[in-house]
Amino acid sequence: MKKTELELPVREAKPRKNGLTILIDNGAPVQSFKDVVNSSSDYIDMVKFGWGTSLVTHFLQQKIECLKDNNIGFFFGGTLFEKFLSQDKIDQYYNYCQEYHCTHVEISNGTINLSNYEKAQFIQDFSQDFTVFSEVGDKNPEAAAELESAEWLACIEEDLEAGADKVITEARESGTSGICGLDGEVRADVLGGIETSRIPLEKLIFEAPTKRMQALFINRLGPQVNLANIALSDVISLETLRLGLRSDTFFC
Amino acid sequence: MKKTELELPVREAKPRKNGLTILIDNGAPVQSFKDVVNSSSDYIDMVKFGWGTSLVTHFLQQKIECLKDNNIGFFFGGTLFEKFLSQDKIDQYYNYCQEYHCTHVEISNGTINLSNYEKAQFIQDFSQDFTVFSEVGDKNPEAAAELESAEWLACIEEDLEAGADKVITEARESGTSGICGLDGEVRADVLGGIETSRIPLEKLIFEAPTKRMQALFINRLGPQVNLANIALSDVISLETLRLGLRSDTFFC
Amino acid sequence: MKKTELELPVREAKPRKNGLTILIDNGAPVQSFKDVVNSSSDYIDMVKFGWGTSLVTHFLQQKIECLKDNNIGFFFGGTLFEKFLSQDKIDQYYNYCQEYHCTHVEISNGTINLSNYEKAQFIQDFSQDFTVFSEVGDKNPEAAAELESAEWLACIEEDLEAGADKVITEARESGTSGICGLDGEVRADVLGGIETSRIPLEKLIFEAPTKRMQALFINRLGPQVNLANIALSDVISLETLRLGLRSDTFFC
Repeated sequence: MKKTELELPVREAKPRKNGLTILIDNGAPVQSFKDVVNSSSDYIDMVKFGWGTSLVTHFLQQKIECLKDNNIGFFFGGTLFEKFLSQDKIDQYYNYCQEYHCTHVEISNGTINLSNYEKAQFIQDFSQDFTVFSEVGDKNPEAAAELESAEWLACIEEDLEAGADKVITEARESGTSGICGLDGEVRADVLGGIETSRIPLEKLIFEAPTKRMQALFINRLGPQVNLANIALSDVISLETLRLGLRSDTFFC
Repeated sequence: MKKTELELPVREAKPRKNGLTILIDNGAPVQSFKDVVNSSSDYIDMVKFGWGTSLVTHFLQQKIECLKDNNIGFFFGGTLFEKFLSQDKIDQYYNYCQEYHCTHVEISNGTINLSNYEKAQFIQDFSQDFTVFSEVGDKNPEAAAELESAEWLACIEEDLEAGADKVITEARESGTSGICGLDGEVRADVLGGIETSRIPLEKLIFEAPTKRMQALFINRLGPQVNLANIALSDVISLETLRLGLRSDTFFC
Repeated sequence: MKKTELELPVREAKPRKNGLTILIDNGAPVQSFKDVVNSSSDYIDMVKFGWGTSLVTHFLQQKIECLKDNNIGFFFGGTLFEKFLSQDKIDQYYNYCQEYHCTHVEISNGTINLSNYEKAQFIQDFSQDFTVFSEVGDKNPEAAAELESAEWLACIEEDLEAGADKVITEARESGTSGICGLDGEVRADVLGGIETSRIPLEKLIFEAPTKRMQALFINRLGPQVNLANIALSDVISLETLRLGLRSDTFFC
C-alpha cells in the first residue's frame, strides 16, 4: 500500500494467521488470473480452485506456478473431494492432491450424505500430509436452515479436534445456504453462538462472497476476520473494506 | 480435460451437434476476449456478438480471427437484424453479415412487431447463404408471458420448416422474459410441451444466462443440452455443470 | 465506430460536454484496466477510482498514464475525501490529489455527517485548483429516502453556485440509495423535479450502475445524458444503449 497520512487498521504481513483473504477461482482464463495475482498479491493469502474446475482447466499448472511465485497457497474445492468420495475413489483424490503439491485440502460434506463424524475421519487422514480446512454447513438451503446453532459449534469443535487447521463456514459462492438463513441473511444465532464460544477467531474462516457479507463480518468481528470465497474481482474492494476506506465499513 | 479416474458424462468432440455452448460477448475488451477463447476453446462452440455491439467494437476483426483460429463459429445478435429491418434495410444487413463471413445468422422478433410467419420468410431468405438460428419468445416479459405453450411449439416448427438449423428459446442475458415467466423461473408448461413434442433436442438451443437456468436444463434434459447466452466468465463453470462436478448438478 | 448504413443518434466527439460516460474502477487488475481503455477509449470520458481503492492499488501510476495517453480524465471517489475529512486531514487530501495531477475532484457527503452548506465551502476551496464534481444524495437508503425532491434541487443549485462544474446524483455502485427509493427504483419525484427545473442537463451526472438505470435515463432524458459509476465491463453495452442498438432503448 502506498504510504498515506490516514490512520488505518494495521494488517499483519504475509504469511499471516488472521485477516486471511481466500479467493475462489471459478475458472478464470489464465492471463486474467495472473493479472489479478500480480496486481494484488499482498492481499491474497490463498486461492481455492472452486468445486471441480481444476479438472477442466487447461492451464492449471501455470496458475499454480503463478501462485507459488507469489507465496500464495491453494487447494481444490470440497465438492471435488465429495465427488471422488461418492465414487469410492478417495485414494485417487489423495494422489491427485499430492500430484499437484497442494498446500491445503478442503474436506466437506455440503452436497453428499456424510455425517460430521465420518467427515472427521477424513480430516484425520488427510492431515497427515496436508493442512486441512474443513467445512461446516449444507449447500442445500433447507437442510442448512435445520442445523441448529449448537450443532454448528459441535461440528466445528469436532473438526478441530480431528486435526483441521481451520474450519470454514459454508455460504456457497452466491451467499445463500450454509451460514445464511432462507432469507439470505447471515444467521444471527450461529454468529452469536460463535462469538460467545471459546473457539478462537483465527480458527475460523467465513465464506463471504458478497460485499454485504464481507462488510457484516468486518463490522462485527473486525478487520482481521478470515474470509473466503472472495471473487477475483473483489480483492481490492475487500482490502478497502478491511481498512475502513469504503462507506460500508467507514466507521468500523 | 486432464485425465481423471472419475466416471464422468462423455462429451462429443467439436464440431458437435449436441451439448453446444454458445457464448454471448457483451463487448469484452479484445485481450480479455482472446484470453477466454485461448484458455477454453474446447468448450466453446460458438460466440454471439450480442445485440448491436459489433457496430461499436473496435477490434471486431481481431476477435473474429481468434474465433476462426479456434474453430468457433459466430453470429450477430438478433436485435441487430431487427434494427436493420426496422429501418427497412434488410439487404444492407445481409451484406453486413457476408462482409464479415458470418457462419451463422440469428433471425428474431423479440423486440419489433413481426409475426412468426413474416419471420419465417426471412429465415428462408437468409438460409440461402447462412446457417440460420431463429429465435422464439418475446423480450418483453408481459408479452412473453402471454405466449402459450402450444404457440411456442407451433413457432418452433414453423421456423424449422422455413429452414432454421436450430431454434433458440429467448431468455435475454439476465434470465427474464422469453421462456421465463414473470416470476423469473423457467416456465414448466413450455418446457413440458417441448419434452413431449416430436422436436429433436438437438434442434433446440436454450438461452440460459444464469447458473440456476443452466443447472435446471442440464438436470432436466441432460448434459448434452444446447445452451446459449453463456457469459464469457462462465465457460468453465458450465462445463463442470455438464460433467456433474458442481453441487447443482452433482447427481445428474 | 464502424461506418454503418443505419441511422443512429449522433454523439459529440471527445472532449464533450454531453453524453459523458464516467467509469468506476473498483480495483481492476492493471492489464485488464488497460485492455478496457485501449479497446474502447472513444467511449470513455472519465474514470473514477472508486472510494479509497487508489490507496491500495499497486499500479495506480500505470493506470493514470494509460488514461492520460487516451485523453481520459480521472478522480478519486468522494468517500476518500470524506475519510480524510473525518480525520481532520483535508490539506493532506488536497496534496494527495495534486500529487497525482488529478483533473477532477469529487466532493461528497454521502457517508459522513456534513451539511450541504459545509460541503459547499469545500467545493469552493477545491475549485481553485481542480474541476469539481460534487455529489448529492445519501449512501444510506433510509436517510436518502427522507431527502425531499425540493431539497435535492436546492442542494444541486447550492453546489453549482459554490463552483461545482457538474453535480452527480448518488446511486452507489449497486443502484440503491441516493436517487433510488427504498424499492430500488429511480425516484419519479426527484427526476420530475430535475426535468422541470432550470438546471441545464449538461450540469448533471447520474450515477447509473445498472443497465436498468442506464436505459431509464436514456429513454427519459436522451442519449446525451451524462452517466457515471459505469462498470468497466459495461462501456460497450452503454454505448449501444445510447445508440438504440439494444432492446431496452430500441425505440428511443
